[in-house]
Order: sequence, then structure tokens, then C-alpha cells
Amino acid sequence: MSNQVTIFDTTLRDGTQGEGISLSVEDKLKIAQKLDEFGVHYIEGGWPGSNNKDIEFFQQVKALKLKHAKITAFGSTRRKDIPPEEDVNLNKILESGVSVATIFGKSWDFHVHKAIQTTLEENLAMISDSVAYLKKNGLEVIYDAEHFFDGYKNNPEYALQTIKAAADAGADWVVLCDTNGGSLPEEVTQIVGHVVQVLDTPVGIHAHNDCELAVANSLAAVQAGARQVQGTMNGFGERCGNANLCSIIPNLQLKLKYTCVKPEQLSQLTLMARYVSEIANVHMPLNQPFVGSAAFAHKGGIHVSAILRHSKTYEHIAPELVGNKQRVLVSELAGQSNLVFKAQELGLDLDLQNEETKRIIQDIKELEHQGYQFEGADASLELLLRKASGEKVEVFEVDSFKIAVEKHKDDANVRSEAIVKLLVNQQEIYTVAEGNGPVNALDNALRKALVDFFPDIEQMYLSDYKVRVIDEKDTTAAKVRVLVETSDSQNSWSTVGVSENVIEASWNALVDSLTYALIGKSAVSRKEHVVERAGLLNH
Amino acid sequence: MSNQVTIFDTTLRDGTQGEGISLSVEDKLKIAQKLDEFGVHYIEGGWPGSNNKDIEFFQQVKALKLKHAKITAFGSTRRKDIPPEEDVNLNKILESGVSVATIFGKSWDFHVHKAIQTTLEENLAMISDSVAYLKKNGLEVIYDAEHFFDGYKNNPEYALQTIKAAADAGADWVVLCDTNGGSLPEEVTQIVGHVVQVLDTPVGIHAHNDCELAVANSLAAVQAGARQVQGTMNGFGERCGNANLCSIIPNLQLKLKYTCVKPEQLSQLTLMARYVSEIANVHMPLNQPFVGSAAFAHKGGIHVSAILRHSKTYEHIAPELVGNKQRVLVSELAGQSNLVFKAQELGLDLDLQNEETKRIIQDIKELEHQGYQFEGADASLELLLRKASGEKVEVFEVDSFKIAVEKHKDDANVRSEAIVKLLVNQQEIYTVAEGNGPVNALDNALRKALVDFFPDIEQMYLSDYKVRVIDEKDTTAAKVRVLVETSDSQNSWSTVGVSENVIEASWNALVDSLTYALIGKSAVSRKEHVVERAGLLNH
Repeated sequence: MSNQVTIFDTTLRDGTQGEGISLSVEDKLKIAQKLDEFGVHYIEGGWPGSNNKDIEFFQQVKALKLKHAKITAFGSTRRKDIPPEEDVNLNKILESGVSVATIFGKSWDFHVHKAIQTTLEENLAMISDSVAYLKKNGLEVIYDAEHFFDGYKNNPEYALQTIKAAADAGADWVVLCDTNGGSLPEEVTQIVGHVVQVLDTPVGIHAHNDCELAVANSLAAVQAGARQVQGTMNGFGERCGNANLCSIIPNLQLKLKYTCVKPEQLSQLTLMARYVSEIANVHMPLNQPFVGSAAFAHKGGIHVSAILRHSKTYEHIAPELVGNKQRVLVSELAGQSNLVFKAQELGLDLDLQNEETKRIIQDIKELEHQGYQFEGADASLELLLRKASGEKVEVFEVDSFKIAVEKHKDDANVRSEAIVKLLVNQQEIYTVAEGNGPVNALDNALRKALVDFFPDIEQMYLSDYKVRVIDEKDTTAAKVRVLVETSDSQNSWSTVGVSENVIEASWNALVDSLTYALIGKSAVSRKEHVVERAGLLNH
Repeated sequence: MSNQVTIFDTTLRDGTQGEGISLSVEDKLKIAQKLDEFGVHYIEGGWPGSNNKDIEFFQQVKALKLKHAKITAFGSTRRKDIPPEEDVNLNKILESGVSVATIFGKSWDFHVHKAIQTTLEENLAMISDSVAYLKKNGLEVIYDAEHFFDGYKNNPEYALQTIKAAADAGADWVVLCDTNGGSLPEEVTQIVGHVVQVLDTPVGIHAHNDCELAVANSLAAVQAGARQVQGTMNGFGERCGNANLCSIIPNLQLKLKYTCVKPEQLSQLTLMARYVSEIANVHMPLNQPFVGSAAFAHKGGIHVSAILRHSKTYEHIAPELVGNKQRVLVSELAGQSNLVFKAQELGLDLDLQNEETKRIIQDIKELEHQGYQFEGADASLELLLRKASGEKVEVFEVDSFKIAVEKHKDDANVRSEAIVKLLVNQQEIYTVAEGNGPVNALDNALRKALVDFFPDIEQMYLSDYKVRVIDEKDTTAAKVRVLVETSDSQNSWSTVGVSENVIEASWNALVDSLTYALIGKSAVSRKEHVVERAGLLNH
């Protein structure tokens, strides 16, 4: 049996059933282009019988010059009691102009009775007629057997009859779907094993993650003989999501030695995953396996000192194989070795015998004790480490800031105003600005003060803002930690501020953020910093 | 072999290794209390040899009257070439006063050479001496075999020698750890199967999610004979997280028919998971299996109409078994029945034909849409429902508030001032106060305005204050949700405020909090409310 596993991506169809996921035609075209470059074999673009947006996608996708992937359109078997020629759904697939159709039909007798309310015989005819009709029209046909595992567990003979009907009618693939996501790996192993024995047609797997087992079920199916895996980027999909191709592909390829994509394509996996998240406008979980920014991040001091000795000690694969990278987080749990490692990453030389360096390392630990959390604020930490290595990192000086927030019962709006006084290149700059809230007003006033000196500031925007009370026992008198993420067109960087006062904490994080971005752009310090600049924002 | 599986929760220790997860001693105590009620068997509280915060936890946890769970402290085997009596780590475990120690040692010959740099023989002695020392001091000992699977794959004889050393020295459990998270289910099945054959001591599994297989690996281990599962709530933990107990427990119990907790405890799983996320102040992914708010949410039109016919068609389990619920994302009816139910719980009669009641119910739904989260703010919801049932709930009227925050470089302090104008019993009250920050200042000014009318206010204090940005995409212009918890000597209650402005959101939550507390104490409304009063604060 071949070691090649065919990857069927349904991010653009099943993936968009996920809560909070919505893709425009333009979004879908961009993702299709990337999926093709990444090397998936099929791209399911949508359901032309279900909505007009999908019809438009199929029209426009023809203009993309895909090198590798086949575009496929989704639909159901014909409706009961009509001939396939008259079925709108099936004809929309033909009209979409794709060369591959993916149609689903019922495998579970319970569903035949309860959901589509017809006889078991008519359901078999619906499957057979639909596949034959599409084949007769020259299409490659992938048959998705909906609820196959539940159907098989309830009535194995009938479930097998349904996929035999598809195979006998000429289906090119029979894909077994765990639609409700309730199956366990050993069930998948046993049932797929049985199907590949009785069917000559190649078999695929389509799993859902309701038991947090979609990846395991997909691997089990391949090991039992399936040779197509259907899934989505980042596991997008309804309820708990579809099987996550970003985990399945590296597991199959790096651990189980199957072939899905080329090694150089696999090394684009992290980029691919993050690109899809960006386009879909959803947060990628930090801890997502293989591709998340924390997937190879190390926090504990023991781990870190071991990693400095040999990285295999705490990493199951080399992160570069999937285009990710190792990161060392600094935290209260870790010792000095994390800081030294971090400095090395930045190309900084920390002289641990130097009194000033020792003092700053001591400061960092003290700040952590106060509630700073540098693991989420690389840029603030970098500023401190650059100071520790003797660099000058101040780009402007703060004289004062002031905010006022006011609300009257006769006025629906709350008024927020900020006043900022800075010294930039020996000039005093005094600005005032409004905002939706005090932090937004401060941000606006600060940018207004700096934009003449650093026009690049217009390209930067706050991409994330988080507040956390550190010691809840003291509540409003307790310390507050603010994390700010700033982005420009290419990069993003995070900073932290801590204070008993949420306004001051926000201010500190905002100042760090702009300082970090501007170090390389400052006239005063350009000479010293221009070299580090590329590295600075390049992470 | 028994069907009972012992649950070992390490949210408070390994879970805090996760990026962005940081828990105060107070947080840890709250979570420990809930874990005990939920029915886990062991709660790993921290590493007393690693930091002072954990030592404080072990001191304070003694005051909690846990009904069921045993508290355990983590540590390593003794350092090389010293007797256990002189090992600080081991002695800190003894000093922590726990009855159960969990210590880890090396199983992988590669690690013995590279990480701790000693001989294979000395490593065996380190394990054996450490377990024996703790046993001699009367503790139950759980031995965590770090990197056991990697070690076994590299040198099975040596890996087995290490756990035999622990077992022979008297360890009560031997737990096999997939520390790097790189193992596959079939490897776990084979290796655990071998270990349970050669070892009399009960065996456990500790998996990590680097391949998105931690749940599958934990199930595989139990099916191969392991009887303890270590993991964390929501899968918190370093890199890609630990094995997620919120998925493992329902899989074991509902699918594989093992016993972990009582069915009535399992039905608290969703609440438990969300509580831990709230305390840790991290977003729970909507699509988290079993407990996420989208886990049983249906979007596709086909699914929804099928679900209306029969819910089993698209749900792998009844959501109520894990305390979750079905949601139909387009449904308008779902919200109303919940509110009616909640009102009934409070003894309120909602007349759904009444126009005012309809309007308030519509308001509540609109507020939820805006980002209010009444799940964490019972008191705010109760105020709204009382309004909906026709009660007068206003104790004072707000005319205006104003805050100013100011900081100059020559002054180490930030000055925060608040001005509040209220109408109480037709009197205009105008107060000004300072605070550590703007919210503290507002709170002080508000209390100053009310204390003469309601002296009980002096007994109340803010016991919790949480801020979350709801839509992080818009950053400082995004909506902010503030949750406030207020306590007096006997009770505590929570309120919520939402606004684009953190100050206004905090103000709304503060006003709700005091209003809720004062309803029963208001001269005007005392008569009507005195009966409900006991119930009011009694939850």
C-alpha cells in the first residue's frame, strides 16, 4: 500500500460553519492560493447549491492559476423521489464548472428515517443515482458518507450497503465521516479496517473534534488503510471544529513517515496556519500544537537550562520542520539562565560579573515579583536587556501626562481627554487629544506628540490591549498589569506596564511600545542602533 | 481490574507553566476548593522547593476544609551525590505539611547524561533514596517518571529499571510521563501494557498535547491498564498544554464506562472549566470540546431542523451530562426561557404579556449581545429581573461623576481624584475623594456620598475586580467588561459593567454593586424588600 496520503482541505466550506468564522469571496480566494502553494490536493470551495457567495467563488477561482490543488464543490445526494437531472443541488455543482464533486449521503438508518424521512431503499437509490449522474457528466466524485461510524455501530450491514452503492456507481473516493465527532480511535481503527477489506475504492476519513480526538481518529484511520484525510486549517469548523490538518499533516509525515506534502512545503505550515487565522480574523490560540507561538516556548528554569545543553531534551521535533521556532519565556519560575538565553538570542552580551548588569537582572526579577509578566511582553524585556548591556534606549522623555473622564446624566456620552508633555530632541511638545476612553485618549495624544519626529508612527496601531488585576485581595487598590500589543504592516511587539493605577500602567506599556518601535528611528541614537534594527522588529 | 480511575489535577502546578497563566495564592485556594467539590482525587498545589508563593499556598490550604481531595506537593528526586536528608527540595516537601508527595526523576538515559550529567547508577540511587526518604517520613509517594516514553523507546531496560527503583523503594504510584508530548497512542498502548505486566505498583499517565494527542494518549493508557490520569483543567500547561481533564473525564466516564467522579459532579464540569478560566483570566475557546459555549451550538440550517426533530442526530452526548447546553445560534427563544427560569429561582413572577417586562427581557438580550456576561454577575442580572417584575430597585440617582489622573516627572506618585454627584432621598450629595487609581477614587467618593444614609456600607469591601477587553481587534477603542465582586462579613455578590471606556464600565459595576447591597436597607423600600433580603445576599 502506498505511503502517500491525499489531503482534502475544507476550511472554505466546513470551516466556515464554525462560530465567529465568516469569509468573503476575496478571503476565500486568498486562502485557496496559499493552500495550493502549501501543497494540499483538494480544496473544497463551498456549496454552490446553498448560497450565492459560493457560486461567485467558483466563478472567480478559475482565474487563479493553481499549480497543484483541485477545486471541488460540495453538495448532497439528490432529494428523495426525483431524478438527479432535476435536482437543483446537483446541477449547481455541474454549473460551478469544477472537475471534482464532493457529495454527501446518509449512512445511518436512524437518520434516513428521522432526518430525511424516506425508506432505506430510496436512500440507496439517491446515493447511486447521484454519483452516476455526476460521473456521467465527466466529474471526479468524492462520496462523503455522513455519520458513517454512528451508522455502522447501529446497523453495519446497511452502512456498508450505502458506501457500496456509491462505489458501484463509480465514486472515486469513499470518505467515512464521524459527523457528530463522538467516535473513539479504536472504533475508527476497527471500522475503517473492515471497510478497506470489503471495498476496492480508495477510502478517506472526515473527523470532528467533539471528544478532542479528531487528530487521533484521523491518524487511526490512515493506519487502518484510509488514504485521504479531510480537515481544516487550525481545526476550524462547527461546534468543536473539524480535524486539524495543522496537526495531522506533521504527525503523519514526521512521526508516521507517510507523505502528504513536500518537506519544504511542511516548513511553511506555521505561516500557512497563521495566515488563515489572520484572514479569518480570529485569534490563534498561543498553545496550538506545532504552529502556535507557545508550541515550542519554554518557561520553567530547569527546562531552560537543559535546553541550553541540548534542545532535544524538551522538544519532540525540531520546530523548524514546521516553520515554527523555539522561544524562551521569562517568568518567576525561571532563573537567570532564561535571561542569559534571551540576551543571546538578541545578540546581546551580558557580562554577569558587571555590577550594572547584575543590578538590572535583579531589577527584572523584582519587577516580576511586583507582577510584571515578561513572557507576554518580549519588547519590554528587550528594552531592559538592552539597558543591561549598556545601550541607550530612551527616544523621548516624559514630562507629564494627565487624563480626565467625565459623565453627566444629561449626556449620553462619556468625555475622555488626555494631555501629554514630552521632551523630544530637546524640544518640549505639549498635546491634547480625546478618545473613546482614557487609554485611547492617551494613545492619541502620545502619537500626536511624536508623529512629526517619527512619521512611521502612522503605520503602527494597537492590535491588542489586556488588563489583569494581579493581587485580587486588594481589588481597586491592587496592582494592575496592562499588556499592549502594537503592530505595523509587518510585525507586532508586546509591552507591559504595572501600577496600582490602571491609567499609569497603560501609559507605561504605551511608552515602552513606542520606544521599542522608535529606537532605530531616533536621530540621536540611529548610529548605535541601526544595526540591531533589522533584528529588533523582525520577530 | 477495577473500573475506577483516579484523577490527579495539576492545574495549580503544571498548569501555571502555561504562557499567560499566572495564579495568586488567593486564586489557587479558590480553585482548590472547587476542584475538591468537583471530585478530583489529588490536587497538586505547587512546588514548595521552587518558590515562596507555593509555600504560602501549602500553609493556607490547610484552613480549607476539603472533603475529598488530597493535596500534594511537587518536587524532584534528590540532587546527585548528596544524601536525601540534606536535599533542600525534599525537605521543603516535608515542611509543607502535605500527606502526599509527587516527585519526578529521570527515565531517559540521554537525559541522565546530558541534563543532570551523572551516571546511570547514581540516577537509580537518586530515585530510590528519595522515595524511601519520603516514605520513611510517613508520606504517600507518587513517582512521576519524566520522559518515560522517550526513555523507553531509547533504552527500555534502563527506563524500566528506573521505575522499578521507585516501586521497590515503596512508591504508591508510578506515573509514566510523556513530558515532550511527542508520543503516539499506539506507542502508549504498547509501553503502558508492558509496564503494567512487570510492575505490581499501580500505574498512571501524564501526557502533554504537543501532537494534539494528549487526550487520546491518556485514554490509550487507561485502556492498557493505567489507573491514574494526571492533567489540568482546560488543558492549561506549558507549550501546547497538559492533557485536558475536561475532555478526558467525560470520555472515560460516558464513552468508556470507567468511573472518575459521580454523575452529579460530572454535570458540574462546564461550570468548573469556566470558573478556572475566569479565575486565571484567560479566554476559554468557544469550541472547546464538551465545555465550550460552541460545543453544542448548531449553525447549519440542515443541522438545526434535524435537531428540532431529534437532538441525537447531531449531538454525540446529551450536553446536560457535562453541564453544558444546546444552543441554536439563530434562535431567539433560547434566551427567554433561561430568564424565566432564573426569575422563578428568585421567586419573581415575570408576566411575559406585560410590555415593560418584554422590553426589559429584550434589553437583557441586547446587553448580552454587547458583551455583558451575566454568568459571572448574578447581582446585576437579579437587579434587571427585579426591574422586569416591576420592583423599584433604585436606591440613589446618579447626576454625574468625573475623574482625573495626573502624573509629573518630578513626583513619584500619580494623583487620582474622583468627584461624584448623587441624589439620595431627594438630597443632592456632592463628594470628592482620592484613591490609588481612578477606580479606587470613584469607589471612595461613592461610599463617602452614601455612608451617612447607609452606615452598613462600611462593612462592605471590594473583594474582586476584573477587567477584560471583549473584542480585542479594536484595542483601546474596543469594549471593556468589568466584573466587580463585593463582600461583607457574610456574603459576596458580583456585578458587571460594559463600556468602551474602562472608567465608565467600572462605574456601572460599582453602582450596581452598591445598589444591590442597599436595596433592602433603603428607607423607601425597606418594607417591600425586607423579606427578600435574606435570600438576596444568600448566594
